[in-house]
Amino acid sequence: MSQYTLGLDFGTESARAVLVDVATGKTVATAVHPYADGVIDETLPAGDRPLPPDWALQNPADWLAALETTIPAVLAESGIAPESVVGLGLDFTACTILPTTADGSPLCALEAYRERPHAWAKLWKHHAAQPQADRVNEVALARGEPWLARYGGKISSEWLIPKALQMLEEAPDLYAAADRIVEGGDWVAWQLTGKLARNACAAGYKATWHKVDGFPSADFLAALHPDLTGLYRDKLAGPVVAPGQKVGGLTAGWAGRLGLVAGTPVAAPIIDAHAAVPGGGVGGPGTMFMIMGTSTCHMLMAENEVLVEGIAGVVEDGIVPGFFGYEAGQAGVGDIFAWFVENGVPPDYHEEAAGRGLSLHDVLAEKAAALRPGESGLLALDWWNGNRSTLVDAGLSGLLVGCTLATKAEEIYRALIEATAFGTRVIIEAFTSQGLPVKAIVTGGGLTKNDLLMQIYADVTGREMAVAGADQVTALGAAMLGAVAAGQSGGGYRSLAEAVVHMAPPPTRVYRPTPEHLAPYNTLYAEYRRLYDYFGRGENEVMKVLRRLRKE
Amino acid sequence: MSQYTLGLDFGTESARAVLVDVATGKTVATAVHPYADGVIDETLPAGDRPLPPDWALQNPADWLAALETTIPAVLAESGIAPESVVGLGLDFTACTILPTTADGSPLCALEAYRERPHAWAKLWKHHAAQPQADRVNEVALARGEPWLARYGGKISSEWLIPKALQMLEEAPDLYAAADRIVEGGDWVAWQLTGKLARNACAAGYKATWHKVDGFPSADFLAALHPDLTGLYRDKLAGPVVAPGQKVGGLTAGWAGRLGLVAGTPVAAPIIDAHAAVPGGGVGGPGTMFMIMGTSTCHMLMAENEVLVEGIAGVVEDGIVPGFFGYEAGQAGVGDIFAWFVENGVPPDYHEEAAGRGLSLHDVLAEKAAALRPGESGLLALDWWNGNRSTLVDAGLSGLLVGCTLATKAEEIYRALIEATAFGTRVIIEAFTSQGLPVKAIVTGGGLTKNDLLMQIYADVTGREMAVAGADQVTALGAAMLGAVAAGQSGGGYRSLAEAVVHMAPPPTRVYRPTPEHLAPYNTLYAEYRRLYDYFGRGENEVMKVLRRLRKE
Repeated sequence: MSQYTLGLDFGTESARAVLVDVATGKTVATAVHPYADGVIDETLPAGDRPLPPDWALQNPADWLAALETTIPAVLAESGIAPESVVGLGLDFTACTILPTTADGSPLCALEAYRERPHAWAKLWKHHAAQPQADRVNEVALARGEPWLARYGGKISSEWLIPKALQMLEEAPDLYAAADRIVEGGDWVAWQLTGKLARNACAAGYKATWHKVDGFPSADFLAALHPDLTGLYRDKLAGPVVAPGQKVGGLTAGWAGRLGLVAGTPVAAPIIDAHAAVPGGGVGGPGTMFMIMGTSTCHMLMAENEVLVEGIAGVVEDGIVPGFFGYEAGQAGVGDIFAWFVENGVPPDYHEEAAGRGLSLHDVLAEKAAALRPGESGLLALDWWNGNRSTLVDAGLSGLLVGCTLATKAEEIYRALIEATAFGTRVIIEAFTSQGLPVKAIVTGGGLTKNDLLMQIYADVTGREMAVAGADQVTALGAAMLGAVAAGQSGGGYRSLAEAVVHMAPPPTRVYRPTPEHLAPYNTLYAEYRRLYDYFGRGENEVMKVLRRLRKE
Repeated sequence: MSQYTLGLDFGTESARAVLVDVATGKTVATAVHPYADGVIDETLPAGDRPLPPDWALQNPADWLAALETTIPAVLAESGIAPESVVGLGLDFTACTILPTTADGSPLCALEAYRERPHAWAKLWKHHAAQPQADRVNEVALARGEPWLARYGGKISSEWLIPKALQMLEEAPDLYAAADRIVEGGDWVAWQLTGKLARNACAAGYKATWHKVDGFPSADFLAALHPDLTGLYRDKLAGPVVAPGQKVGGLTAGWAGRLGLVAGTPVAAPIIDAHAAVPGGGVGGPGTMFMIMGTSTCHMLMAENEVLVEGIAGVVEDGIVPGFFGYEAGQAGVGDIFAWFVENGVPPDYHEEAAGRGLSLHDVLAEKAAALRPGESGLLALDWWNGNRSTLVDAGLSGLLVGCTLATKAEEIYRALIEATAFGTRVIIEAFTSQGLPVKAIVTGGGLTKNDLLMQIYADVTGREMAVAGADQVTALGAAMLGAVAAGQSGGGYRSLAEAVVHMAPPPTRVYRPTPEHLAPYNTLYAEYRRLYDYFGRGENEVMKVLRRLRKE
């Protein structure tokens, strides 16, 4: 009898369940559940008071509803017996945190707090804690906090401390009422098992945890706010465990609700981007995995800990236990192309696309593909959404140079793609020049469907770009965690690395560098690097001046 | 009985005649004649052999046809007696030159040469002599030719020596057959009067003539090509005279053909852009005149000769006799906005314009006008067509910085307008910082109709921008020359300065700086200057690298 593992992928707008054959990695059933309340950024589900700008919340009830619809659905679709499900793994957006009571009840589920914005789960892209993030960075820098260097010298407003501090400052009574502050993924596992653990991936990348040094000190927290001192000791209480480690067995109540067997092992979660690494077939050091969508996340493992300039995070056990997981990122990639398509393309291209039944991206890519490298005469800095790696500076902005009266839309489109490829090359070189080998690259995500883009990435980096074989790399990675939580004796695997070997399909295709494109792209990359350093490292602060004038 | 002067404005596609009251400057009749052969840039009127790229020719027969249709038309329309026409002035594009025999017959009118491209008039925008221009500049620089500094250190492929050298190299038999090489305007005056003179404006700005030093030496010409030595001595023979000086009286033959009186004084011509200066009401030093269209030409007079960095030319008697005329320019202005409107604006703006019966420029200007200075967060270098002043570098290109995912088309539109205003401010500062006062500014040309643009120019420069009162400043300037050629005794004026006083209408309107816009624009201008120097003066050669890659 075949055995199966369940993978749950909790995204921004919906959750997906996959049921995967443990031996082969083949997905036998899949189901998607859109969240009823979706992203809450205008008014709360309770009451109709408008939320301030930059707020983004979720309703934890949506996550449980997703379990209750998708798991029975994949069981029914596949027709397999509940006994053949050896484990359940999940990935989650992060940092997505919610305040709860000691028993795990979300504050937003309590009548007293339902109309209070701070009672709800703050989604990863809640950006209203920027003032708090600025202060955290200032204070940490002033105090010489040693952990700051692990995050490229700056932490994001999306992370735990700024979000918690915002709650404390704006709703101190709610902060006091919150016995626990929990990542969404850890909270779901807590619900399913009755046991609270903190996954090392979110704890490390978003809550400044370190396997040896632990969390930032109470002194540091006190310097931010006297009442923040107990944040980690009390509200973040619970063991930190590697993704895939068994948190506990499914409770009888949840087993009944989901149609599974009580005691089924539930794995410690992982951040969604990081789940794609094993799901994409990367189980250890030397191969960089890029998940490429609206933004791009670059993940790489190594045997050792190195503080790489401008890398968004390094976490031991953060991706695959036993290795240091490094994360870098580009804040805008697909978002930039989407911006251009929406804001910069004249009507004749739209008409051609409509007439030929193509998307505007297809038409632009077709025309751009006819250009040789350098033919556009354009070069861009891909900072439309700031620069995450290696400059860690959201205040930077996009630049386009080389415009003439003959410049066409497809030339700008190509220059924007090339700029994001140059940005990736900077990140690869940051890794390799600082002692972390990048021997191969595997990619996943929506942008891998764009042939022109993938070929440009191969040509610009001079490296083969493999496209991960699985349709749903993220959900597959989550399912692998379920097989690891089951363990070999429970019908799964001894390690995540072993699960990857057996369960990840080979790449569907590989883009290889075009030899004659290397020289022109080396020339363009040298110019890109020069502009990158000139505008990105303080020599010319025009981007900051422009941002300030814009806001005045 | 009122007296009148005829102004003929010979443009690129057509010629215009105006009949103007000498006492008041009021235009009483106007007529336009489109050239039958227009701009000849594909095949010659004789034969159908295609022309090489970058060629642009005219047929001198079109110029004469324009005289024969427009002058009788304005006489008929106005009903005035031919005796009341005191003089005839004309302006012409330059450098537009044609080869002729000693009696003034164009080589292209001779059966033997009709199918030879080099026999026709080379229009100002004939750009096929770029290799020759490069060599002229190299040799002049190497020899330390003193006249080079008067032209910002570089002469253009549009000018006389490169065009003549191209003819000598590519069609030496035609060069030998050409007894004379003549500016189109001087040739028309020659036809009308039977006398050949060279107008100081075209001779100075396009043929490197200097009132004291004369023309470049025979040694220099010999260094370019042994057979070029006699270019000025033989082919450019004829006195150089100030615009408005009487070349001669109308011949009996032409008087009959045009319906005028034989002997009517014909003035030495002026370049079209420069005719706009007196036509715009500027008769002497201290007031800069800007003619603003696809490109912008900035003209200023002074009592003294100064070598201003990056100024396109300084010519004594070049505009108004008795003064040194300085010319600077921006190679792309209206052209850049037209490029953007054609290539960078998405369909919803087009639909809004169509729905409201407005032009796309109107819609963009309306939205851009709602932004305060700095609100776009954008800054551009307006070098889409290179930089004429003050960098004299056609190899530079456009740059846009500050792009975000929220950037809108109207913000880019405004940033492009602002960039051209910053470019004008650089030119004003080049004049004033080097000892040439700019006490006031008068503007003319199509862009003066754009309220948003004019206000931005006032705000960016901190100066009042007056808009010239005449509808056709250029043709009016030409008509003034006719009145000057007539002289006071002939019913006209003693000088061009005097003609300006009586004949130029006051400005229609004046744009005044908005006090609260000065500070943000000073901040933006400082950033513009920094980028201007960084990319324009060799510190970062990325624009040159991009241009080279584009052409490879």
